[in-house]
Amino acid sequence: MLKTTDWLLDPRGVPGFERHEVVAHLESGPHVHHTEHLHVRLPKRYGLVNLTEHVEGVVERSGVVDGICFVSAMHITAGIYVNDAESGLLEDIARWIENLAPYGEDYAHHRTGEDNGDAHLKSFLTNHQLTAPVTHGKLDFGTWQQIFYAEYDGKRSKRILVKVMGLTR
Amino acid sequence: MLKTTDWLLDPRGVPGFERHEVVAHLESGPHVHHTEHLHVRLPKRYGLVNLTEHVEGVVERSGVVDGICFVSAMHITAGIYVNDAESGLLEDIARWIENLAPYGEDYAHHRTGEDNGDAHLKSFLTNHQLTAPVTHGKLDFGTWQQIFYAEYDGKRSKRILVKVMGLTR
Amino acid sequence: MLKTTDWLLDPRGVPGFERHEVVAHLESGPHVHHTEHLHVRLPKRYGLVNLTEHVEGVVERSGVVDGICFVSAMHITAGIYVNDAESGLLEDIARWIENLAPYGEDYAHHRTGEDNGDAHLKSFLTNHQLTAPVTHGKLDFGTWQQIFYAEYDGKRSKRILVKVMGLTR
Repeated sequence: MLKTTDWLLDPRGVPGFERHEVVAHLESGPHVHHTEHLHVRLPKRYGLVNLTEHVEGVVERSGVVDGICFVSAMHITAGIYVNDAESGLLEDIARWIENLAPYGEDYAHHRTGEDNGDAHLKSFLTNHQLTAPVTHGKLDFGTWQQIFYAEYDGKRSKRILVKVMGLTR
Repeated sequence: MLKTTDWLLDPRGVPGFERHEVVAHLESGPHVHHTEHLHVRLPKRYGLVNLTEHVEGVVERSGVVDGICFVSAMHITAGIYVNDAESGLLEDIARWIENLAPYGEDYAHHRTGEDNGDAHLKSFLTNHQLTAPVTHGKLDFGTWQQIFYAEYDGKRSKRILVKVMGLTR
Repeated sequence: MLKTTDWLLDPRGVPGFERHEVVAHLESGPHVHHTEHLHVRLPKRYGLVNLTEHVEGVVERSGVVDGICFVSAMHITAGIYVNDAESGLLEDIARWIENLAPYGEDYAHHRTGEDNGDAHLKSFLTNHQLTAPVTHGKLDFGTWQQIFYAEYDGKRSKRILVKVMGLTR
């Protein structure tokens, strides 16, 4: 079982964020489809870190005024979720995830030589993707909604896909 | 631990529904983006209530014939899910959620003065958002699929975002 | 409680796949909306089976080059999720789902004569729907991301909705 101190909990940003890569940008009249891969390498194996400002950056670069912003981990040992950026809550979430999908069990997946069976299960609890609405050029969120990246097998390069589709005016 | 009687379980509608507010409506040729915030104030702290007819109302007002309808709680202490509108099942779901993310634990989040740590965890179990497909002008659902709003911190004003995007013909 | 041998675990395909049915296809300039219902009848009551190639087929038939592909079970006793297609992991996932939402409990839903209360709860764990990004004409996925259909009440005809929306060039 992990302790909360085994997690990198950051309510404000993404330690180990490397770069954003535009992989496609299509325009057709007022319609825009804009896709980026965000490259991240978290310095710890487990983490819950605040991705909101990076997603906002993609929305801004897309030029979309009304549409949707789809955010997804491109790995099956990571998650994307919306919740409050309060540090005590991050501890609660880490503890809750660990309790329901614990590290160090004798998972059948480990017969392959891997030791990250728990990470694959943890991703079900947070989900690995979400859709964020864009209205009047911004994420159409309530006051406390923040987008988090959940890392369950870090210390290596991972990608997060962000695709914004919508109208520019 | 909550009992099922602590929940407002309504398989048919949303007690405390206040109003729908159109926050944006864009048209570009046959393309429509239509966004509403639904205002709800549930009379109980916990509840599972049937939102389907309200979402259908937004789809109808949008005029969209084919596209997607995105539905999301704008709060991190609420959920949106699809399941069956059977009253026994609502009890099962309430009991199951409570069992996996119980009220009254000593959550770290409570150091802020809040007492709703369980609500933040419960929202992971139901998810707080969903996409509903719209085909031939209607929700493209199976026979038993109904959209529910899950309230984990009620008795106050909450908003639910519904965004419909698609073609009008 | 189920054992993992009670599940049909197929990391490669969908046993019991019957046919795909195009239910709508709209074009407006370079915009396409393409919707299919996939018909499946799994030979076992419980199963985790690989749906990826069927979803890829819908994307190809849609002609969409950039957009989103929405996939949803049309039943509330089934799930759709993304994870790794490794057979040991399928056992772990089946065991984990069963452990958190066990078969054979005395669910209130069973007062209706049904015996599938567990199936309704299991669908929360995997979620019953997902959005897949389409970029450069293909699912914009990481190396190990595969789409699975989770059946919790099989041996009868079920439908899966796939809607692809986007630009054809």
